Amino acid sequence: MREVDIVISGGTILTLDNDNSQIDNGLVAIDGDGIVAVGKNEDLKNMFRGIKTIDATNCLVMPGLINAHTHAAMTCFRGIADDMELMNWLNNYIFPAEARNVDPELAYWGSKLACAEMIRSGTTTFCDMYIFEDETAKAASESGMRCLIGEVLFDFPSPNVKSPEEGLAYTRMLIEKWDSDPLVNIVVEPHALYTCSPSLLKDAKDLADQYNVPLAIHFLENKGEAKQLKEKLGKRATKFLHEMGYLNERFFAFHCVAMDGEDIKVFADNGCKVVHNPESNMKLASGVAPISSMLDHGVTVGLGTDGCASNNNLDMFQEMDTAAKLEKVERLDPTVMPASTVTRMATCDGARVLGMENLVGSLKVGMKGDIIIIDLNRPHLTPMYNACSHLVYAAKGDDVKTVLINGKVVMEDWKVLTIDEHEVMDRVNQIARRVKKSLEIE
Amino acid sequence: MREVDIVISGGTILTLDNDNSQIDNGLVAIDGDGIVAVGKNEDLKNMFRGIKTIDATNCLVMPGLINAHTHAAMTCFRGIADDMELMNWLNNYIFPAEARNVDPELAYWGSKLACAEMIRSGTTTFCDMYIFEDETAKAASESGMRCLIGEVLFDFPSPNVKSPEEGLAYTRMLIEKWDSDPLVNIVVEPHALYTCSPSLLKDAKDLADQYNVPLAIHFLENKGEAKQLKEKLGKRATKFLHEMGYLNERFFAFHCVAMDGEDIKVFADNGCKVVHNPESNMKLASGVAPISSMLDHGVTVGLGTDGCASNNNLDMFQEMDTAAKLEKVERLDPTVMPASTVTRMATCDGARVLGMENLVGSLKVGMKGDIIIIDLNRPHLTPMYNACSHLVYAAKGDDVKTVLINGKVVMEDWKVLTIDEHEVMDRVNQIARRVKKSLEIE
Repeated sequence: MREVDIVISGGTILTLDNDNSQIDNGLVAIDGDGIVAVGKNEDLKNMFRGIKTIDATNCLVMPGLINAHTHAAMTCFRGIADDMELMNWLNNYIFPAEARNVDPELAYWGSKLACAEMIRSGTTTFCDMYIFEDETAKAASESGMRCLIGEVLFDFPSPNVKSPEEGLAYTRMLIEKWDSDPLVNIVVEPHALYTCSPSLLKDAKDLADQYNVPLAIHFLENKGEAKQLKEKLGKRATKFLHEMGYLNERFFAFHCVAMDGEDIKVFADNGCKVVHNPESNMKLASGVAPISSMLDHGVTVGLGTDGCASNNNLDMFQEMDTAAKLEKVERLDPTVMPASTVTRMATCDGARVLGMENLVGSLKVGMKGDIIIIDLNRPHLTPMYNACSHLVYAAKGDDVKTVLINGKVVMEDWKVLTIDEHEVMDRVNQIARRVKKSLEIE
Repeated sequence: MREVDIVISGGTILTLDNDNSQIDNGLVAIDGDGIVAVGKNEDLKNMFRGIKTIDATNCLVMPGLINAHTHAAMTCFRGIADDMELMNWLNNYIFPAEARNVDPELAYWGSKLACAEMIRSGTTTFCDMYIFEDETAKAASESGMRCLIGEVLFDFPSPNVKSPEEGLAYTRMLIEKWDSDPLVNIVVEPHALYTCSPSLLKDAKDLADQYNVPLAIHFLENKGEAKQLKEKLGKRATKFLHEMGYLNERFFAFHCVAMDGEDIKVFADNGCKVVHNPESNMKLASGVAPISSMLDHGVTVGLGTDGCASNNNLDMFQEMDTAAKLEKVERLDPTVMPASTVTRMATCDGARVLGMENLVGSLKVGMKGDIIIIDLNRPHLTPMYNACSHLVYAAKGDDVKTVLINGKVVMEDWKVLTIDEHEVMDRVNQIARRVKKSLEIE
């Protein structure tokens, strides 16, 4: 009998492996940061003894969810402005709020609040783009959360950097500083084609190539952007990216609402990936991304909440539900985007988007111990005919009971162990008072 | 100082009165089944002393939500079949599952489970259409939930009644039996124009008129139905209803996805109301109802979850969020369906749809004590710039902490007081085993 750090037993395991295997009355053994066994309880219970054991009877056990696109620190601007035209929203609320308020303190506490919210709703890995990302990395690392983070790069100054060159240098610093951290990974993130010059885009790509890290960008978020870019660039945006050398397997793009068949084919041919943000795309009235067509062409698609100024929460369960339902009503076909497909988008496919498929996204021997346990003993999850259906169409973030990341329990029985939530909420409430004052909301 | 049964003090009150008044640090006094005072804490605290006091500091206090269309007992079929063509779903799963399994026991326990789920997610009134509705009435009454319920009427036999005549007689029995119950109200509910003959429709209307109760129907759920009805009736469906004498202020219709401008005008001219079911309409790929146009024409619109076979939960918070976002992306206009409008749809406007606007849906002196208290002290609700924005775009059912219906506390600090939830879940799990067997799912 092998002694391991943690044994989770008795639950229904969704492995999210290649066969979507489901194991009833299963057992997962975790030692150190990784998974050392996954199988039936009766086969494994005499082989592994846990220093800590977690009873998952009447629970689902599955890989932690992967929020493949967010702006974590924007929790500080949650609901600051809704129901507005995009340019009014950006120019009169979001940009002024950011210019007057974003500093290391806001980035740190806003990110920490996001980590608390994400852990509570079953997210174990997030991909972030914002300002002062060193603070976000610190917040995530302290919270025990896995992340892939990038400082937003654009032609103009941000509250953190005075120039594109400083942004690139800051990104290089992040890559080197966090290289040995087991939880923090870095991505190079130019903001968008309409905010970055060709020279910045090229430098960003060179930096990503130099360190062999991923490269990601906001892309074709709505039809207006597609039209504007075609005029500005004199060619379709995917062609421009292709000529810049962007289109390879380390590249992924956020939103992609206005991609057409030709764009999708180019992405598929070059192994580029997409992050779908249905709730944000709906709330900002950006449109509906052609996800079914992307999937038909073999493009890997992950799922992200976007930031809290355009969603306004970070709950991946709600995002899964919306992703499935939006696609059905848009295509007028209830068979598209079945629950099993959406579950993979939020787990193993999200991991593939981020280039982390060998670390997380499925429960297999050798993968990191990023696991969530969902309590099924609740009225809105009774009865259960199909586990994936429940995950996507009935469950909510609060149904997540226990969360492990990198083999460590970060939430147990709804108690977050790695974050002082009251302190974090107090700090963010203080920051919000300053934000309100700066915008003369009060 | 007047002694009253309950005083709720310290919270931010959303009254949902005609001016959408918000009262910070407010007080609500409840005596017997009704509200006797609503105002600022400092003005009222020396006037009312509660036998029971509820501290609502850092909470939102608002009217209970109104789920204006559901099939409560279908919790027993939650997630039994998803991601299918409508006719495959209906003919091979839902109809056989119902024919083989729906009996008084299923209706009772399924409804009771629905009551537990609805109370937990802040719904205090629901409008139901299903089979064996006397059982649903009993379940609701025992759970302390307010409801408006109707036995589904169609030309063919149901597991409860052998003929349309029996269905009408059963409905008459419900009206007379539950007349004196403070919580249970009855509506006459023919299923749809494609399942009810003109003579059944006329008898249903006569019954509703005789007792002065509401009349409601599934209507134009998708384009296929609209086309089929036009062929069958030889005229547009609204014209047919008009000639049948249906179109008055006591009439409301569910779904209404395929209504066009002319239909909307006829509804507006006659004071008919609509229930919007965005999540079900999305999941079944029925289409997007023209809600903005209905609102522009002055049609009163409520919100409903539909049943658990097509949603698959009864959470009105998620329904509010989806209602707002779906309308924005469908109209490509982020300003339509602002959070305040959606909040009214789920409360005071829902009450108007059901003809209960003098009882529930807003917090005013003389209204019944149907009140929910939402805990704001949670990461995903921090910080708060705007209460309605939080309700619609960030909050979830589990944020509801305490629920009062008809002046009685039915849930306190997340503990449901009126229902033995474990017994209910056990019973429904037993029923589900029988359902699985009947469909040979296992």
